[in-house]
Amino acid sequence: MLCLMVFGSFTPLCAEQLPDAKASNPEKLQWMQGFPPEPERLITQPQSNFFSFPKLRWSVCHIRELMPTKQVSRGIVGPGLWQSRLAPDIDKITFNAGDSKEQLTWRQSLARNYTDGILVLHKGVIVYEQYFGCMRRDGKHAAMSMTKSLIGLLAEILIAEGTLDDRQLVKSIIPELADSGFGDATIRQVMDMTTAVDFNEDYSDPGADIWQYSVATDPFASPSDGQPVGYFAYLKGVKKQGIHGKAFGYRTVNTDVLGWVIARKTGKDVASLLSDKIWQHIDAEQDAYMTVDRLGTPFAGGGLSAGLRDLGRLGQLLLDDGKYKNKQIIPAATIASIEQGGDKAAFAKAGYLTLAGGSYRSMWWLLHNKNNAYAARGVHGQTLYIDPVAQMVIVRFASFPHAKNHYIDPTSLPAYEALADYLLKK
Amino acid sequence: MLCLMVFGSFTPLCAEQLPDAKASNPEKLQWMQGFPPEPERLITQPQSNFFSFPKLRWSVCHIRELMPTKQVSRGIVGPGLWQSRLAPDIDKITFNAGDSKEQLTWRQSLARNYTDGILVLHKGVIVYEQYFGCMRRDGKHAAMSMTKSLIGLLAEILIAEGTLDDRQLVKSIIPELADSGFGDATIRQVMDMTTAVDFNEDYSDPGADIWQYSVATDPFASPSDGQPVGYFAYLKGVKKQGIHGKAFGYRTVNTDVLGWVIARKTGKDVASLLSDKIWQHIDAEQDAYMTVDRLGTPFAGGGLSAGLRDLGRLGQLLLDDGKYKNKQIIPAATIASIEQGGDKAAFAKAGYLTLAGGSYRSMWWLLHNKNNAYAARGVHGQTLYIDPVAQMVIVRFASFPHAKNHYIDPTSLPAYEALADYLLKK
Repeated sequence: MLCLMVFGSFTPLCAEQLPDAKASNPEKLQWMQGFPPEPERLITQPQSNFFSFPKLRWSVCHIRELMPTKQVSRGIVGPGLWQSRLAPDIDKITFNAGDSKEQLTWRQSLARNYTDGILVLHKGVIVYEQYFGCMRRDGKHAAMSMTKSLIGLLAEILIAEGTLDDRQLVKSIIPELADSGFGDATIRQVMDMTTAVDFNEDYSDPGADIWQYSVATDPFASPSDGQPVGYFAYLKGVKKQGIHGKAFGYRTVNTDVLGWVIARKTGKDVASLLSDKIWQHIDAEQDAYMTVDRLGTPFAGGGLSAGLRDLGRLGQLLLDDGKYKNKQIIPAATIASIEQGGDKAAFAKAGYLTLAGGSYRSMWWLLHNKNNAYAARGVHGQTLYIDPVAQMVIVRFASFPHAKNHYIDPTSLPAYEALADYLLKK
Repeated sequence: MLCLMVFGSFTPLCAEQLPDAKASNPEKLQWMQGFPPEPERLITQPQSNFFSFPKLRWSVCHIRELMPTKQVSRGIVGPGLWQSRLAPDIDKITFNAGDSKEQLTWRQSLARNYTDGILVLHKGVIVYEQYFGCMRRDGKHAAMSMTKSLIGLLAEILIAEGTLDDRQLVKSIIPELADSGFGDATIRQVMDMTTAVDFNEDYSDPGADIWQYSVATDPFASPSDGQPVGYFAYLKGVKKQGIHGKAFGYRTVNTDVLGWVIARKTGKDVASLLSDKIWQHIDAEQDAYMTVDRLGTPFAGGGLSAGLRDLGRLGQLLLDDGKYKNKQIIPAATIASIEQGGDKAAFAKAGYLTLAGGSYRSMWWLLHNKNNAYAARGVHGQTLYIDPVAQMVIVRFASFPHAKNHYIDPTSLPAYEALADYLLKK
């Protein structure tokens, strides 16, 4: 029996009790329907526990209705046209779910994964596109920690442009962090999450630091007197624990430190810079947005919501070495830096069973599989998966009951590899 | 000496103390600049008093960073192209400011009015477009009570389509309002704001009902136990005072009743319906958005933020009898209904000095001037002004220190009429 803790809730849920994708469909559960909705259909601020399952299946598409947010502007341009050659055969592709002997079809995996939206690009052409649950083509979905990879990409752009040196110490750019655990870490250690700091991000532990972080940074929470308010204030109090550079440790605070570094270096917060450097140059179909704390600071560690196709455009930009329509939008060196991967030994120490042999660099997950695929990943099943050999980009939004991707990888990663094999034969 | 009360503040400000447009420029005052901003540069939630002058000059462009909001989707379409034939001579047009002998040029009026953005269309072509203060071409600005006119337009569309009958009583559609002051009012009386209800909207009175309304509907406010939460709950408690249909009384609650009626009749909240009926069909350049209360209800009475050009598109749609690109987007009857105007005698009783001889119908202000111009209007100087004779649309966003348009009309309405004269001669 799979028992789990869900984000924002300390009540364990067990797999047998969990409604499946169909039964937990937010349309069917009628969340927020009616004028006004009945009390039992309400998902409200404050104190709504809106990221508990199955509420989260509605909330992932409606973050801006629950939180203040900052626009990531697409500018005002005509969206570029997509070519589309849909391949319905993809539904029939089969794969084995992880180490189990269970064989699933691609189509079966969609509901199993509580998929809200999925897009597959092959050689820059849409070959598969589906929307479920709360997601619509003109809607936006929480990207969760996929946000981190975009912030890492921004940092790589600044490095390639000469604005940022990843060998610098954090304290040389952010003096306010000199006495924190981050002060004597290099920017590269922050980017690769090999800092050694005392920050517990175990979502199943009610006493974990991540919950205090949430109180400090959620405009609707109420920090006690003397407690930090906002991302920057909190980060100053994070202490060192160990030696930087030895082990990979997935801690969201690293990304918010990186966001601070980026803002200080460029004079722009990460939402504005994401627009300036990327969103305005890829003919994005929609603006994206980021949640902000009560000081207006965007949540670099996980605050982005975006359209499915626009994350596809970003993935294609990486696949095309930073070029869009024959124009170099971001330096090719940024993608080369990510693709070289991180320290496999440091990564192995973290014990990610579903990502064995992988690494982490610049906030991207490297699979080091036969096709050198790499990915942006976020809790509850968010993925931007780039396969340079198969020339394939997959974007998958989901509202899987469990935060940890450990539980959804077995029905996802083998499916992606099977799809790559299929496309390579086309 | 002009002394005034500003929205969200009970401290009177006097004109002599007020910085002018240049001195109060939000860029110059560096609101929210820095990482983090210095405490004296912060505009935060909760309890930020963000609509006090001069903070409001920043806040009008950043509502979504301070409040939960709901998207008004443009869909995913290529924005239509505008023709542009800029006429710089417009800057030199002169006019007399109201009854005073002071002559101003059009250009001078812009700073005098604390203009943030202004667009003039003539025969569907952009002839003038300027951005100031916090506003940018790809930004959005609070429309304030211009929102009401869009909600009135939606109601007119539903009437023309046969979905809504303006002779029906409110209680026949919203039984929850049967015991309120609105119960026995007709939909038409609500649309024309001739309901007689006990609701004081004098922003200069700290005890006015509008402040309790704000507490009930602001997700960051804290209603006491037993106090209503959200628009719908509050409206149920509004009492009758007088006889419906006798006098025009500008009360925001009417629009929120109308929004409730629209939602109940169509199954869609007004933000969604605005997208479905209009925003998706005019090649809007940007999504718009509406603030929501803690139950997710959009603020029909004033919650919209939109791009300057997109409100221009809406104005052009009305000027073109509801047609866009030879397609009938909204029934011509809706515009004819608005243009016929409201009850002048009922309007006169309200004593609007700068709008003498005017009327109000379907949440639009009719000037009944020589060109039969009519307008959507919002506090602090927001205007969408449509002149059917001169074939002119003006959109003006502003952050004038005073909420009441009474103070900004003398440097605005004569300028618009002078501009119409100029364009008629071209």
